[in-house]
Amino acid sequence: MLPKGFYCGGLHSGIAKNKNKNDFALFFSDSPCVVAGMFTGSIVKAAPVLIDIDRIKKYRLFQAIVANSGCANACTGKQGKKDALIVCKEIAKQLKISDTDILVASTGVIGDFLPVEKMLKAVPKLVENIKKKDELAAVSSIMTTDTYPKYISKRIKVSTGEIKIWACTKGSGMIHPNLQGFHATMLSFILTDAQLYQKQLQKVLEVAVKQSYNCVSVDGDTSTNDTVLLLSNGQSNTGKLNTQDLEIFQKALNEITLKLAKMMASDGEGATRMIEIFVKNTKKHEDAEKIAATIATSPLVKTALFGSDANWGRILAALGRAGVKLNPDRVDIYIGNIMTAKDGMAVKFDEVKAKKLLQQKECKITIDVKSGKQWARYYTCDFSYDYVKINGSYRS
Amino acid sequence: MLPKGFYCGGLHSGIAKNKNKNDFALFFSDSPCVVAGMFTGSIVKAAPVLIDIDRIKKYRLFQAIVANSGCANACTGKQGKKDALIVCKEIAKQLKISDTDILVASTGVIGDFLPVEKMLKAVPKLVENIKKKDELAAVSSIMTTDTYPKYISKRIKVSTGEIKIWACTKGSGMIHPNLQGFHATMLSFILTDAQLYQKQLQKVLEVAVKQSYNCVSVDGDTSTNDTVLLLSNGQSNTGKLNTQDLEIFQKALNEITLKLAKMMASDGEGATRMIEIFVKNTKKHEDAEKIAATIATSPLVKTALFGSDANWGRILAALGRAGVKLNPDRVDIYIGNIMTAKDGMAVKFDEVKAKKLLQQKECKITIDVKSGKQWARYYTCDFSYDYVKINGSYRS
Repeated sequence: MLPKGFYCGGLHSGIAKNKNKNDFALFFSDSPCVVAGMFTGSIVKAAPVLIDIDRIKKYRLFQAIVANSGCANACTGKQGKKDALIVCKEIAKQLKISDTDILVASTGVIGDFLPVEKMLKAVPKLVENIKKKDELAAVSSIMTTDTYPKYISKRIKVSTGEIKIWACTKGSGMIHPNLQGFHATMLSFILTDAQLYQKQLQKVLEVAVKQSYNCVSVDGDTSTNDTVLLLSNGQSNTGKLNTQDLEIFQKALNEITLKLAKMMASDGEGATRMIEIFVKNTKKHEDAEKIAATIATSPLVKTALFGSDANWGRILAALGRAGVKLNPDRVDIYIGNIMTAKDGMAVKFDEVKAKKLLQQKECKITIDVKSGKQWARYYTCDFSYDYVKINGSYRS
Repeated sequence: MLPKGFYCGGLHSGIAKNKNKNDFALFFSDSPCVVAGMFTGSIVKAAPVLIDIDRIKKYRLFQAIVANSGCANACTGKQGKKDALIVCKEIAKQLKISDTDILVASTGVIGDFLPVEKMLKAVPKLVENIKKKDELAAVSSIMTTDTYPKYISKRIKVSTGEIKIWACTKGSGMIHPNLQGFHATMLSFILTDAQLYQKQLQKVLEVAVKQSYNCVSVDGDTSTNDTVLLLSNGQSNTGKLNTQDLEIFQKALNEITLKLAKMMASDGEGATRMIEIFVKNTKKHEDAEKIAATIATSPLVKTALFGSDANWGRILAALGRAGVKLNPDRVDIYIGNIMTAKDGMAVKFDEVKAKKLLQQKECKITIDVKSGKQWARYYTCDFSYDYVKINGSYRS
């Protein structure tokens, strides 16, 4: 259920070839929202990303997010920006708000221009639609190769009352975190009726993303369009949150984004399962992060996982090329709770049992470096025939 | 044909499960050789790599290379080194040379120990075999997932006579360069009857590898066992090479290693074609290298190439995340000679023609950054169903 004052809807406007595929979404708050945003770290930024970064710098309050699938509106230059702004303007007119109150997001094929005429024609119906608050219609409109819509909501109790958080995300290809500051990796919109200062909101979002979306990799390919937006309209009437309540809010946001991040990994393109790569006991946190990211993106590790092959040698080989200085002769590797390598060498283990663990929908691989106290985790998926199939013919 | 004074052979010793698969090779020079070596940049180094690095530091002259497939002898600790040295000793005895005259190399599954007894039993026959100078038998013994043996030789004229260079290599998975100094990426043995100082030899090898083996990627996974050895026994009787002749030698070595590097890319695991990623007009050479490497290893680019899909947006997206600062609005992209993007945006192009070019066995993609005068190239292959098949069940 959406937080107080929020509306959403989605429909097929004709961007997608498939008439049964929704492709045009609108999220709206009937009162102004404070906004926090994180965007792709790629130097190639799509038009909607450039528009949002610019607007968030210039303006303080927003009321709507317009999003589409089927066309990334990336590598489209001035025309791309112009197209997005025309659509914004029409929506603003119908919503009776200023067009600078709107943020935009797109996903789909790079290099294509938005079919502006088709979208403009669909605007009246889209604006009308949002009264129904049809979350599924909205979320399905931003799906590309996702196999199911991903959205969750949560009620949280704070000292002054109850707050709602609602969040959606879409994967499932070109997914790889970029760990620099103001950056993220996919489309995710988070709506809340809590009341927060903009700086607070930005901080809680960055903390949440660091431990969730920035720990997911499907294919190592960072997108040109990655966008995370958090809108807060304060309609819960719980007032400004005190320190303790802010902690409760942070915890809830962490949980929600982590859940969505895991969904994204397990629904990665062609994925048959999700694997958590947990690297522990490194000297520095960055070391654990580098090792986890290298293992999580290794094609040899990911294809072995598809084959449910407990080939720990490939895990150790990936660690070896991660660019971290450490003693590989201290490294232990576990598949689930089964030790498969000790001090960088083979140990006898039950291959059948390990294979069974790897065949589960979720599996954890632990790499214990035994050299310090830092850790990091990554959520990834296996590399299957279907990944090749999906991506060998994405545009056709 | 092998250079003067060199012998080689190979046979099935029982390391490989398949009885028709040669797995044990020996290369021998009947007089001492100066040696140059380059090894994996991974911090996880296999026992044979550690032995070679140590021996090349300690000793000046060598006479043989012993190599095997089917077992990488990596992540095998002290036992792994001991095993390799036992095999060396037996071969040295039979060849009537010192066991420290021998260098070793292994490829295959990580974490398994060498089947020393089987190998020792095969030594007499292997040593006997090398008289036949059966290059195919030797080279096929180091093949793993390669679909054909890769070796070439070349005669070159220098001012004082004729020199021969012979070289072999094996791919075809866990192939990705590591661009640091004393490092390389696969097994390659190069034999010559030219006469060079050790320092000269090391330098010409590094120059050759930088423009060949270090420009190849199959899967982005740097191996624990990568080894390039260049042996020179001086039997051509052409004497020490003067500056001009050294240049001729360098040119020939560049050509040979580049040919083998291309073979390795085109015979990458599951590859249906080879693609040259040519990045030009960057400010720094490292920028061009980073961009070329990122594009060459992008799963989304490589699966699109498998589908012969001229999806230049993915190429630009990969450039965007390469960690290089540049203006993406200046970038042009060509598939063969067809311009598919200009100034970071779509241009109209003949999709059918582009698809045809991508369907060739070899295709060149050019990324013109238009910001400087530096360039770099990478040889890669497409990502196919067979890559997943080969690596989902490599150990079984």
